Amino acid sequence: MEVSIGRNRRAFMAYGFDDVALVPGTETVDPDDVDVKLRIGNIELEIPILASAMDAAVDVRLAILMSQLGGLAVLNLEGLQTRYESPDEAIERIVEAPQEDVVKVLQEVYREPIKEELVYERVKAIKSSGARVGVASTPMHAEWLLPIAVRAGADVAVIQSTVTTVRFVSTRRQPLDWKVIREAIDAPLLVGNCVTYDAAIELMRVGADGVLVGVGPGAACTTRQVIGVGVPQVTAIADVAAARDDFFERTGKYVVVIADGGMRTGGDIAKAIAAGADGVMIGSPIASAEEAPGRGYHWGMAAPHPGLPRGTRVKVMRRAPLETILLGPATTDDGTQNLVGALKLSMATCGARNIREMQKVKMVVAPAIQTEGKLLQRQQSIT
Amino acid sequence: MEVSIGRNRRAFMAYGFDDVALVPGTETVDPDDVDVKLRIGNIELEIPILASAMDAAVDVRLAILMSQLGGLAVLNLEGLQTRYESPDEAIERIVEAPQEDVVKVLQEVYREPIKEELVYERVKAIKSSGARVGVASTPMHAEWLLPIAVRAGADVAVIQSTVTTVRFVSTRRQPLDWKVIREAIDAPLLVGNCVTYDAAIELMRVGADGVLVGVGPGAACTTRQVIGVGVPQVTAIADVAAARDDFFERTGKYVVVIADGGMRTGGDIAKAIAAGADGVMIGSPIASAEEAPGRGYHWGMAAPHPGLPRGTRVKVMRRAPLETILLGPATTDDGTQNLVGALKLSMATCGARNIREMQKVKMVVAPAIQTEGKLLQRQQSIT
Amino acid sequence: MEVSIGRNRRAFMAYGFDDVALVPGTETVDPDDVDVKLRIGNIELEIPILASAMDAAVDVRLAILMSQLGGLAVLNLEGLQTRYESPDEAIERIVEAPQEDVVKVLQEVYREPIKEELVYERVKAIKSSGARVGVASTPMHAEWLLPIAVRAGADVAVIQSTVTTVRFVSTRRQPLDWKVIREAIDAPLLVGNCVTYDAAIELMRVGADGVLVGVGPGAACTTRQVIGVGVPQVTAIADVAAARDDFFERTGKYVVVIADGGMRTGGDIAKAIAAGADGVMIGSPIASAEEAPGRGYHWGMAAPHPGLPRGTRVKVMRRAPLETILLGPATTDDGTQNLVGALKLSMATCGARNIREMQKVKMVVAPAIQTEGKLLQRQQSIT
Amino acid sequence: MEVSIGRNRRAFMAYGFDDVALVPGTETVDPDDVDVKLRIGNIELEIPILASAMDAAVDVRLAILMSQLGGLAVLNLEGLQTRYESPDEAIERIVEAPQEDVVKVLQEVYREPIKEELVYERVKAIKSSGARVGVASTPMHAEWLLPIAVRAGADVAVIQSTVTTVRFVSTRRQPLDWKVIREAIDAPLLVGNCVTYDAAIELMRVGADGVLVGVGPGAACTTRQVIGVGVPQVTAIADVAAARDDFFERTGKYVVVIADGGMRTGGDIAKAIAAGADGVMIGSPIASAEEAPGRGYHWGMAAPHPGLPRGTRVKVMRRAPLETILLGPATTDDGTQNLVGALKLSMATCGARNIREMQKVKMVVAPAIQTEGKLLQRQQSIT
Repeated sequence: MEVSIGRNRRAFMAYGFDDVALVPGTETVDPDDVDVKLRIGNIELEIPILASAMDAAVDVRLAILMSQLGGLAVLNLEGLQTRYESPDEAIERIVEAPQEDVVKVLQEVYREPIKEELVYERVKAIKSSGARVGVASTPMHAEWLLPIAVRAGADVAVIQSTVTTVRFVSTRRQPLDWKVIREAIDAPLLVGNCVTYDAAIELMRVGADGVLVGVGPGAACTTRQVIGVGVPQVTAIADVAAARDDFFERTGKYVVVIADGGMRTGGDIAKAIAAGADGVMIGSPIASAEEAPGRGYHWGMAAPHPGLPRGTRVKVMRRAPLETILLGPATTDDGTQNLVGALKLSMATCGARNIREMQKVKMVVAPAIQTEGKLLQRQQSIT
Repeated sequence: MEVSIGRNRRAFMAYGFDDVALVPGTETVDPDDVDVKLRIGNIELEIPILASAMDAAVDVRLAILMSQLGGLAVLNLEGLQTRYESPDEAIERIVEAPQEDVVKVLQEVYREPIKEELVYERVKAIKSSGARVGVASTPMHAEWLLPIAVRAGADVAVIQSTVTTVRFVSTRRQPLDWKVIREAIDAPLLVGNCVTYDAAIELMRVGADGVLVGVGPGAACTTRQVIGVGVPQVTAIADVAAARDDFFERTGKYVVVIADGGMRTGGDIAKAIAAGADGVMIGSPIASAEEAPGRGYHWGMAAPHPGLPRGTRVKVMRRAPLETILLGPATTDDGTQNLVGALKLSMATCGARNIREMQKVKMVVAPAIQTEGKLLQRQQSIT
Repeated sequence: MEVSIGRNRRAFMAYGFDDVALVPGTETVDPDDVDVKLRIGNIELEIPILASAMDAAVDVRLAILMSQLGGLAVLNLEGLQTRYESPDEAIERIVEAPQEDVVKVLQEVYREPIKEELVYERVKAIKSSGARVGVASTPMHAEWLLPIAVRAGADVAVIQSTVTTVRFVSTRRQPLDWKVIREAIDAPLLVGNCVTYDAAIELMRVGADGVLVGVGPGAACTTRQVIGVGVPQVTAIADVAAARDDFFERTGKYVVVIADGGMRTGGDIAKAIAAGADGVMIGSPIASAEEAPGRGYHWGMAAPHPGLPRGTRVKVMRRAPLETILLGPATTDDGTQNLVGALKLSMATCGARNIREMQKVKMVVAPAIQTEGKLLQRQQSIT
Repeated sequence: MEVSIGRNRRAFMAYGFDDVALVPGTETVDPDDVDVKLRIGNIELEIPILASAMDAAVDVRLAILMSQLGGLAVLNLEGLQTRYESPDEAIERIVEAPQEDVVKVLQEVYREPIKEELVYERVKAIKSSGARVGVASTPMHAEWLLPIAVRAGADVAVIQSTVTTVRFVSTRRQPLDWKVIREAIDAPLLVGNCVTYDAAIELMRVGADGVLVGVGPGAACTTRQVIGVGVPQVTAIADVAAARDDFFERTGKYVVVIADGGMRTGGDIAKAIAAGADGVMIGSPIASAEEAPGRGYHWGMAAPHPGLPRGTRVKVMRRAPLETILLGPATTDDGTQNLVGALKLSMATCGARNIREMQKVKMVVAPAIQTEGKLLQRQQSIT
């Protein structure tokens, strides 16, 4: 819905997870019959959940576990794992920095150069356990790092930055050659992030097997505050999903849409799918797993930026084992555990047998705003 | 009002109690002349209020009292009352559990099996006092439990789950046979919950005498957070009321609409009726009665779910005798006491002589959002 | 703007003071040239401000002072001043009651009967000082009390209840005979409260010289919470102002519109006028004057209701002398002092020379909602 | 978008920085290639940032520094710098006043008369260092003060009050003669503030080289609360930018639009430009520089108003050196440092090579309202 926000200036209304809710239909489905598989290129995942390429969420151990539970972890090839032989110490420095020094410590720790041999070794270590793993690089380093990681056995390659477009204009730097990279990588390729129909279509045209959707929504990210850029996820996902459907109709190639960022609960994930996503990539919920490398903390990959840090260290706690978070059974009622169970129950309640059906479920706009009644209710219910 | 929330994706705006307010007309009515009776099948209630089938709200004693005050309590046939000969002990465990263990304790306590003889005995105990009572079962156990309870004298049967649809699709479980259950039960039948026109019409077609409206709004419920599903009550009630009116026009049968959940004050109840409901079902306000079994606490019936608990124990306090809460006189000014008096005054102020007239009263959309002015006002008025 | 809030159910969007802001035009005016006079029948007031008929705001002393400052106080003929020879003691009981007993104490104190002789004496006492005063009664007691007060010299008569309509339907009580009362009272007559075009037009037709607009907005009022009824002031005022203009066009009689309730700052008053009011009636700001009878507290006239209290005692502090509050100079920057100066500056800034021009000033919808940015700003600015 | 806010009363929806977000396009640009220059008349600034004519933000030292960093400070010719030979003492009194006395102290301190020789000396002091500087006066004193300052070498003249219109109506005071002042000043002239198309066009017609946009948005300003007047900045900027474009088309003269007030982060500045501004004027961020005269505090220029103070002293802290705030590198992640770097990255991300391109970037309406999900997220992330 386009509105006028001033003379000669129009803007679309954009909606986030908190702005919408799912509507049950006239049929309900047995949750045990619900199918939530996600296929990326030739890879089929039992559960449609990827772990974000963030250093507090994914290391070798977590990646193996994630694979065993049916999902896919993405290792950040420009993170601590490939900068430090033993990243534990660096993580300890970050985790133990007093709040006022965090940004400075992050900037320091990430100044250490990336080592090619570590890129290779980390992937090898995961693969040797029989697990699947994704690997992520920024566009700037993609031609350098991704081929090494794929050679080491990476199952999925990811090219990711805050905003990635096919066209990059610079008088100083050589833009990424999409044709070269697409040919160099013999694995499904995810690219992102993007938030609009047009940008997504262009990424599909240069050979992406999946696109990551999300600018500004993550818990550990302050992009919207620092540079003002961002589109709430429900609208962004719907727009990119429309691109996927149109691209599929024209070309016969189904490029998956992965919602990335801003999801904290099973309800958020269900809404991401209902908005049109095929799967999701989550950071904070993974970082809050007992097995996560972040030791109860989480930080965004733009947080260590030398000139303009966008994100900081946030406390996410060590809440539960990863299995409990993903597959349950939940021991809390706030939606942060048994994410897959919640997704299945949500789909069952809405009458959706699989992801494609869930993408057509009805939604209402119903902001979860703090109104007086709710505040009073909440206040009254504090034990 | 439908809006676009992204390419090819539309959603209706949905409104809750806090989003609307009632508008007085050109006529006012003497509150003493206002009629608030509710008729469910052949049962006529003096006040249009049902007590929810929740263990913190309804036991034998509360059900008798509720009936004496002119309303109807619904006993949960799958709750503690039918699992334990002496449920007091189980309630004590729940009430005294430290906050961090509540979900686990709830899960444990509700693992005890349901006993048929207790189903019969509890209903008998209420009926032997001359009181009326409703009884509730999930669809899965309806064919087993409801006939026992009706045989024991239950006045109203309720089939209720988070979302109940006529059509349930499963490769593993036999769905409820609506024809069989309708014929097996010789009492008015309420079915729910539902939130849309289409789902409600189908429930009416299989013989429901009333439908329960509400998914996600209750104070002790986190369905919307955990699985993302829910429709704010004003819109849900209006949609289902439209189904009732159309069904009545086509068939001559008037199926009552009972708003269930999310109402805390007299104002909320008045809005539920104005949105189109014939009566309301309330949990928290009943659980906060001095005579309620929950001892000042309340918990949702999805809270003990073994894999995916949706709701927890909330403190509701023991605020006043049930009679004060329902019929007054109020000794507080926050709208939580004398709910019937408030409803009558609301109707009188809006010029409505009875429930049917109240269903046509004008509303405005006027969100009770916390704006700066109100926050300042409130701050300034703290004593 | 009408929107659908569900099938077959439509509602108008309604706006309050916090939802709008005034827009300066292409001309500014010297504040010293701005005329804010208000004429009610044959009475002309220097400033368009009435003090509410509330016991914490108006007694004999305050009424005299209000008149001297150019406004008009309205004495509540059913309040403590006409129930007690020496109301000080009753006020002391209210002011000193512990928070949990306030409602009960209010109910008790207001059980004392109204005395006709006090009605006469209070008005006489005010008039003997040469001051002007208004007097207020509910419709139920209007035929009894207003003639006494007018005989004692009251300049303006007010018939006021939460919602007053010309038509009142009762099988038990005789409704007010509007013809009789209109003929019995030889003074300008204000009637209210109302919030819609139709109700206002009917009040004008039975002879009101002014109508009071406002249901639910006051700081000391919980009508909206308790019975769900209320219309935000900007929309209510605009609707009633349209009735005034149409009535004037048809009959040549200009019935003033007085916005009553919900105004705390000069900005709120300016918006009330811009929405279409000719003047305002305020309670809390008056009750916070050093000379006010409420001793730093305020309570609504529905607060002592025996069955359904709607309002409580709120702390308003003794902030400044009444003169400072109304005419300044202000010593605070929050808009609560120099209300008339603020109104004049607002009109000057918007290019309005008088009240009629201010009623046509442009507004924007610009909710003063607590957004993240503002919260941060505010947080950061706490000294 | 115009909506009805009541019978016969319509209003435009107006949007602020928190209501919108920027949308990346299909092209990204190298931040190092982004050009953010601002040209005011014959003056070209490296960065499009002006320091507000406020006493806590600008004195001689700060003005010199601001110029060295590529921006332009505006010295308030009616502030402490031109009233006191040594303003330090006055500032100390303000900074050290206890909170409850601040308004009174401000009123006292600003009672000291303006001295012509100080007007001349302050400008001379800045110019003798080779720096550029702007000077500001109210319309009332413009014909007196501006010529003195321009004679002393001021590079840009500013005529500024809360709302400045070409037409001022008074029976007592002589309005500013725009023709006289335009001819008397041989420097680029900025005039403001304004918030609408029509008012802006008139200012352009009398010879303004730039207009200042903003009524009510600043952190140290309570205009909207006190007099109810204000338009959120995105809509105000867009409307005035439309006036600029139309005026340019008709006359060939490009009058710059400077957004003034309400910007706290790089994101806010980016949105101001995207809404149509050519540059921004900021107060609080400058006042929070270590070198700022306000010693960690800030106060609005309407705060010392003798009758109706609108604004107070707010604590802004001494956060970082001015260079860090403007040019980075940032050591925090909240968007308050490296404002120019953030603007450049924002433009790069949105594919804008220069200010003119940034003015056409897409926006969405996406209120940064505190919803439940976000509150929970935030709560959970407190370290």
